[in-house]
Amino acid sequence: MNQHVKASTMKRWTLKAIGRDNLDLRSAAVPAPGPAEILVKVSAVSLNYRDLLVIDEGLGFSPGSEPFVPASDAAGMVVATGGDVSRFKAGDRVISTFIPGWIDGSGFGTAREPNSLALGGAMQGVLSKYVLLDEDWAVKAPESLNDAEASTLPCAGLTAWTALVERGHIHAGQTVLVQGTGGVALFGLQLARAHGAEVFVVSGDDDKLARAKALGATYGINRKKEDWVEAVYHLTGDRGVDQILEIVGGAHLGQSLKAAAVSGRISLIGVLEGFDISGHFLPLALKRLTVDGIQVGHRSGLEGLVRAVDRTGLKPVIDAEYELADFPQALDHLARGPFGKIVVKMPG
Amino acid sequence: MNQHVKASTMKRWTLKAIGRDNLDLRSAAVPAPGPAEILVKVSAVSLNYRDLLVIDEGLGFSPGSEPFVPASDAAGMVVATGGDVSRFKAGDRVISTFIPGWIDGSGFGTAREPNSLALGGAMQGVLSKYVLLDEDWAVKAPESLNDAEASTLPCAGLTAWTALVERGHIHAGQTVLVQGTGGVALFGLQLARAHGAEVFVVSGDDDKLARAKALGATYGINRKKEDWVEAVYHLTGDRGVDQILEIVGGAHLGQSLKAAAVSGRISLIGVLEGFDISGHFLPLALKRLTVDGIQVGHRSGLEGLVRAVDRTGLKPVIDAEYELADFPQALDHLARGPFGKIVVKMPG
Amino acid sequence: MNQHVKASTMKRWTLKAIGRDNLDLRSAAVPAPGPAEILVKVSAVSLNYRDLLVIDEGLGFSPGSEPFVPASDAAGMVVATGGDVSRFKAGDRVISTFIPGWIDGSGFGTAREPNSLALGGAMQGVLSKYVLLDEDWAVKAPESLNDAEASTLPCAGLTAWTALVERGHIHAGQTVLVQGTGGVALFGLQLARAHGAEVFVVSGDDDKLARAKALGATYGINRKKEDWVEAVYHLTGDRGVDQILEIVGGAHLGQSLKAAAVSGRISLIGVLEGFDISGHFLPLALKRLTVDGIQVGHRSGLEGLVRAVDRTGLKPVIDAEYELADFPQALDHLARGPFGKIVVKMPG
Amino acid sequence: MNQHVKASTMKRWTLKAIGRDNLDLRSAAVPAPGPAEILVKVSAVSLNYRDLLVIDEGLGFSPGSEPFVPASDAAGMVVATGGDVSRFKAGDRVISTFIPGWIDGSGFGTAREPNSLALGGAMQGVLSKYVLLDEDWAVKAPESLNDAEASTLPCAGLTAWTALVERGHIHAGQTVLVQGTGGVALFGLQLARAHGAEVFVVSGDDDKLARAKALGATYGINRKKEDWVEAVYHLTGDRGVDQILEIVGGAHLGQSLKAAAVSGRISLIGVLEGFDISGHFLPLALKRLTVDGIQVGHRSGLEGLVRAVDRTGLKPVIDAEYELADFPQALDHLARGPFGKIVVKMPG
Repeated sequence: MNQHVKASTMKRWTLKAIGRDNLDLRSAAVPAPGPAEILVKVSAVSLNYRDLLVIDEGLGFSPGSEPFVPASDAAGMVVATGGDVSRFKAGDRVISTFIPGWIDGSGFGTAREPNSLALGGAMQGVLSKYVLLDEDWAVKAPESLNDAEASTLPCAGLTAWTALVERGHIHAGQTVLVQGTGGVALFGLQLARAHGAEVFVVSGDDDKLARAKALGATYGINRKKEDWVEAVYHLTGDRGVDQILEIVGGAHLGQSLKAAAVSGRISLIGVLEGFDISGHFLPLALKRLTVDGIQVGHRSGLEGLVRAVDRTGLKPVIDAEYELADFPQALDHLARGPFGKIVVKMPG
Repeated sequence: MNQHVKASTMKRWTLKAIGRDNLDLRSAAVPAPGPAEILVKVSAVSLNYRDLLVIDEGLGFSPGSEPFVPASDAAGMVVATGGDVSRFKAGDRVISTFIPGWIDGSGFGTAREPNSLALGGAMQGVLSKYVLLDEDWAVKAPESLNDAEASTLPCAGLTAWTALVERGHIHAGQTVLVQGTGGVALFGLQLARAHGAEVFVVSGDDDKLARAKALGATYGINRKKEDWVEAVYHLTGDRGVDQILEIVGGAHLGQSLKAAAVSGRISLIGVLEGFDISGHFLPLALKRLTVDGIQVGHRSGLEGLVRAVDRTGLKPVIDAEYELADFPQALDHLARGPFGKIVVKMPG
Repeated sequence: MNQHVKASTMKRWTLKAIGRDNLDLRSAAVPAPGPAEILVKVSAVSLNYRDLLVIDEGLGFSPGSEPFVPASDAAGMVVATGGDVSRFKAGDRVISTFIPGWIDGSGFGTAREPNSLALGGAMQGVLSKYVLLDEDWAVKAPESLNDAEASTLPCAGLTAWTALVERGHIHAGQTVLVQGTGGVALFGLQLARAHGAEVFVVSGDDDKLARAKALGATYGINRKKEDWVEAVYHLTGDRGVDQILEIVGGAHLGQSLKAAAVSGRISLIGVLEGFDISGHFLPLALKRLTVDGIQVGHRSGLEGLVRAVDRTGLKPVIDAEYELADFPQALDHLARGPFGKIVVKMPG
Repeated sequence: MNQHVKASTMKRWTLKAIGRDNLDLRSAAVPAPGPAEILVKVSAVSLNYRDLLVIDEGLGFSPGSEPFVPASDAAGMVVATGGDVSRFKAGDRVISTFIPGWIDGSGFGTAREPNSLALGGAMQGVLSKYVLLDEDWAVKAPESLNDAEASTLPCAGLTAWTALVERGHIHAGQTVLVQGTGGVALFGLQLARAHGAEVFVVSGDDDKLARAKALGATYGINRKKEDWVEAVYHLTGDRGVDQILEIVGGAHLGQSLKAAAVSGRISLIGVLEGFDISGHFLPLALKRLTVDGIQVGHRSGLEGLVRAVDRTGLKPVIDAEYELADFPQALDHLARGPFGKIVVKMPG
C-alpha cells in the first residue's frame, strides 16, 4: 500500500432523511482501504437528475448505519490501496463506476428484485473529499479530459454510450434524435456525431437549440412551436429517425414510436414526465421497432467510452461548476434543466 | 406456362363492407396469371384473429374495384405460371407469404406510413378456390405437413418464429412464456420446445392448460386462480422468464415487464385487450429489457421455418377444420378462442 | 418510358479472349430497355484490381454470344426506362451494384457453386457509353459526389463498408489496420475515421504513408523498414488492433492473426499474394478471433453507404482519371498500385 | 468456514517434466482454502486431447515451485470455504471452469500474449483428490448429471456450446457437421439435436458412425470410403452445411470451407492434423463464410450450458471410466480416439 494521504479528516455532504433540508456538509474521518479497496481523493463530482429524485423523493434511498452521502460520479486520484489491489496504484487518475461490480455481460438482479445497486442510492455515494471504492468499481480516467470533464462519464456518458453504441450499433449515415439538452442528450449528440450520424435535437428553448447546433446537431426542433413528430417527418421525407434517446418518459414514448423509422430503436432512459410509460401498438408492431430499457451500463462499456473519448477528442459539455459548499445551488440549477452537466468541485 | 386448370369458375368469399353480414360466398371467373404470377389452386386457408378485426372492425380493410376477399394464409398447388416465372412450376405445393414482397432485411414503410400491405387486408385475400400470387409471394410448402397444417405457417407460425428465433435467438435452457393457447402461442410453445427451452403457458382455462402440457409445456398457470406473475416468480425462484410472447396487449404489457428476467425480451404481438399499451418504467430499465414489435416476418424467415418444420417433425395444432360454406361458423369459433388454429378447407 | 437518348451508336471496350491484347474499343448499337430495365448513360467507370484478374487471367470470365465488356462499377444518368420500372425515372443519377440482384440478407449460391455472378465477370460489364441494368441492379447516386467519385462506391467502397460497418459494427475508440493504400484500403481508412476509430496503415512506400496520414491515418508503418506486427505491438502497448482489412492474402493472413487484438476481426478481402491462405491456429483460437470472408456486399448496404457519404461528406480518393480511349494505360496504372481509385471517364 | 474434511493427505498425479514417463501418483497434504477459495473434494476428472499435448509435448506446460498436476475438468463437492466466500457453501456440488476468472465478455490477453491461463496447463490442474479453487472458478453442477458426467462439461461441453450457441446462434432447421466422434464432436451432435438441427458426422469408422446415428445424427459419412465434401453436396442438394465444428485442423480447414453453405460458420477447435491451418480464399469469400477461433468459453456460458443440460436431459457420452491409479491407461485410450469422453474416478 502506498500512502499519499496527509489529511485525517474530510468534508462530505450527508442526507439524514428524504428532503433537501436534510442535507448537511459535515466532517468525517478519512477512511482506510480494506484489502481489495482503493482510497480515492476526489476532485470533481458530476450530478445527475437521478440525484434530485434520491434527495427530494427518496428514489432508491436506503439509509444505513453510516450517514448517507449522495451522488454517484467521481473523478480523482488513487492515494492509497489495499494489500490485494492489482488494478491500480497510488497516483492513478480514476473515475467511479455507477453500478458497482457489473463488469460485463447481462448483469445483476432477478425478475422480482431488479438491480438497484448504485453509488449514491442503495449504496453510499461519492460527494466526499475521499471515497473508498472496491478496486473493481473504478476505471482509469481518460487522459484527454480534466477531472471535472472526466467525472461526467460514469452515468450520463455511459448511458448514451450503452444506448447508441453497445446496444444500438450506431453507424455513419444513421439519424439520431435526442430529447432535450441535458447530460445524456448532449452525450448522445456528441457520440452520434463521432460516428458520422445526423442528430435531431428536440427542446422547448431556442437558445439551447442554437447551442446544440453549434455542438454539431444537424436539426433543432422547438417542441413548443411545432409538433416535433411532424417536424421529423418533414425533415426526413417521412422516413423517420433510426434511433431515439427517450428521456421524457410517460406518455411521451407514444410520440417517439411515431417518429421512429422502420426497424428503429428507442432507448428508454428518462422519466421527466413520469414512470408510467405508454404508447400505441401499431407503430411499434408495423415498423418492427425495438424499445430497450437502459440502466447506465457495465464497466467494460465505460472502458470503451474512455478509449473513444481519448481517440476522438470528445469534450463533455459542462454547464456550470460549483464549489462543494454550494451543492444546494448546484441542485437548483439541476432542477431548472442545465445545458449538459453540472459538476461540484472539491476543495484542494 | 403449364396449364393444369380445368375449371373456369370458382367459389370465393367476399366482403362488400365492414361487418360480418356483408360476407357473401360468390362465384367468379378463374383468373389467368400475368407474366410474373402463379395461379394457385387453394386447398386450405388458415384463419387469424386479425381476420376478425378486418371483417368486424375494418382494420386495414380497403375495398377496391375488385370485390374484397378476406384471409391471408393459403396452401395449395401451382396450376399455372406466367411466362417470366422461374421460382415455381405447375405441380409445386406452395404456401403464401403474409406481407407480399418482403424478402429479407428490414422491410417496407416509412415513419409516417408504416407498412400495412398484407394479403386479406390492404391487399386482396385468399379465401378463394384459386388465387393469383406474384411468384415472389410464395414459398414451397413443407413436405412433412398436409395442406391444412401447412396453411397455418404464413402468419401464426412465422410470427412465433420471428419473435423467438430470428430476433430472440432462443436456445436450450432458456425459459419462454406464452399468453393463452391460440395459434401464435402454441407455435411459440412448440418452437421453444424444439430448441430445448422450458415453456410457461398462462391461460384462464384448466382444460387448455392440460392440453398445452400434453404438447410439451413445462408449467401451466391459470391466471383466474392465481396472480400469474407471482406464479412465475415462484416457479423460477424469482429469476423470471427469458422471453415472453405478449399477445394480450394493453396494460397487460406491464405484467409482462414484471415477469421478465434480467436482459429478458418481450415480443409484442397481440392486442386482445387493446392497442394502447402501457407499463412501468422501472422493471424495463432496471432489468435492461427489450420490447420488440413483431409484424409477422419476411419470406426468408418463412423458408427457415419450413426447413425447421421438415427437420423437427413439428406438427401445427389445428383445433377445427371447416368447409368453405361454413366460414361464418369458423369465424364464430375464432371469436370464442380456439386451441391453436382454425382452417377452412376448399372443396376439391 | 421516357426517351432522352439521342445517339443510336456508342463506344465500348470488349474482350474477345483472355489477355490484354484482346481488348478492343468498338462501336455498338445503343440497346433499348426491356420492361424491367433502365438504360443508363454512363459518365464514369471505376476500375478494380479484380478487373486485371479478369482480363489478364480470366478470373470468372465467361464469354457469351454477346461481346464481353469488362468492368463493374458505373455512375451515370437514367435516360430510358422499361414499362414496368418503378424505382427510377429518366434523369435520375445512379450507380450500379456489383452483384446484381443481391438486395439484402445472406445472398446467392450453394456450397458447391458459390455465387460468382457479378458485372464485368460472369455477367456483362459496364465499360460502355450506355448500359442496360435491371432496375433492381442500381441505386441512387449520392448527391454530394460527382460521377467519377460516385463510381468508386459499388465495389471498393461497399467492400470496406460491409467489412467494417455491416459485419464489424465499428465504433469510436476502436483500432483498424488496413493493408496498403489501394481503393478498399483508403475507403477503410476514411470509413473508420468517420466512425471515430484510429487507423493504422501498412505500406512499403513512405510517400503513400504520408498521404494516408494526411487523409486521417493515425499511424503509418513501412513494412519494408520494420516488422509491421512488432510495430503494431509497440504502438498499441501489445493490445493489437480490433479490426484488420486483410488485402494481401496468402500466408500474410498469418501476420494479421498475430496483429489482431483479443476478440478481433479480420476481413478477408484481397489476394495480392495468392489464393492459398494460411496461418497459425494458436493466435486465432487463443484470441478468439473472427475471420470473415467478404464478397463486396448487398444493395441495402450500398444504400447505407450512400447515406453515410452524403451525411459525412466523405470524398473517395481518386488517384487518376483516364479517357475511355486510354483504358489500357488505366490498367497499367492499376497494375502498378494506385493510391486509391482509377476512374475511366466516358466521352460526353 | 464449514469444515467437512476428514483427511489430511491425498493422492494426486504430478508431472515433473515433459513426457509420460515423468508422471507420478503421489501423496500430498490436503490444502486449506484462502479467504476467497473453496476446497473441493474431487470425485471425477474428465480428460481432453489437450491433456495429451500438455503431457507428451509440453503445450502450455509451465512447471512452478509446486509439483505440476495435469487435467482441467473436475466435478466434486465443496468441503471447506474461505472466510470471504459467498457463492458457495460446504456441500455444494460444483464443476471447475477451464479458464479461471473469465466470467463473461471478451476475455483476457493481448495481441502479443494471447490468454494461455487454464487449469492443468499454465496453471495447476485438478487430477487430485482435493483441489483449491478461487470461488469465481467454479459453477454449480447440473442436478441431472452424476459427477462423472458433470466433469465433462467444463472443456468439451463448453467448447461445443460456445461454438454452436453463444457464437453460432444455432436454430431448428439448420445443418451442423462435426468431425469425428470425440468429446467436442459428440457434444456438438447432442447440442445441435437439442436445438432441432440436423447433424452430419464425418468419421473413418463405421462402428462409430452407427453409434453416432443412434445418438441422433441424421447422416454418417465414412471419410475413408468416400470424399466427405462430395457426400455433403449430395446429401444437401449442393446447399452445404450451416455450421461446422472443425476439429481436424491443418489443411483440413480447406475441406470445411468447401463443405460450408453460403453464410456458413466454421468453428476452429482442433488441431489433430497440425497447427498450420490453410485453405482456399474463394469459397471463404464467395460464400461469405465466418471462421471463428474458439477457446472453450466463459463462466457465464458454462452456467448456460448447465441450465440447458438440466432442462433438456442431455446426457454426456462417456466411453470409459478409469480408476485414479489407471490414469496412464486412460491416456492411452485418449490417444486411440475415444467415442466421447474419458473420465478418471477418484477413490472414495
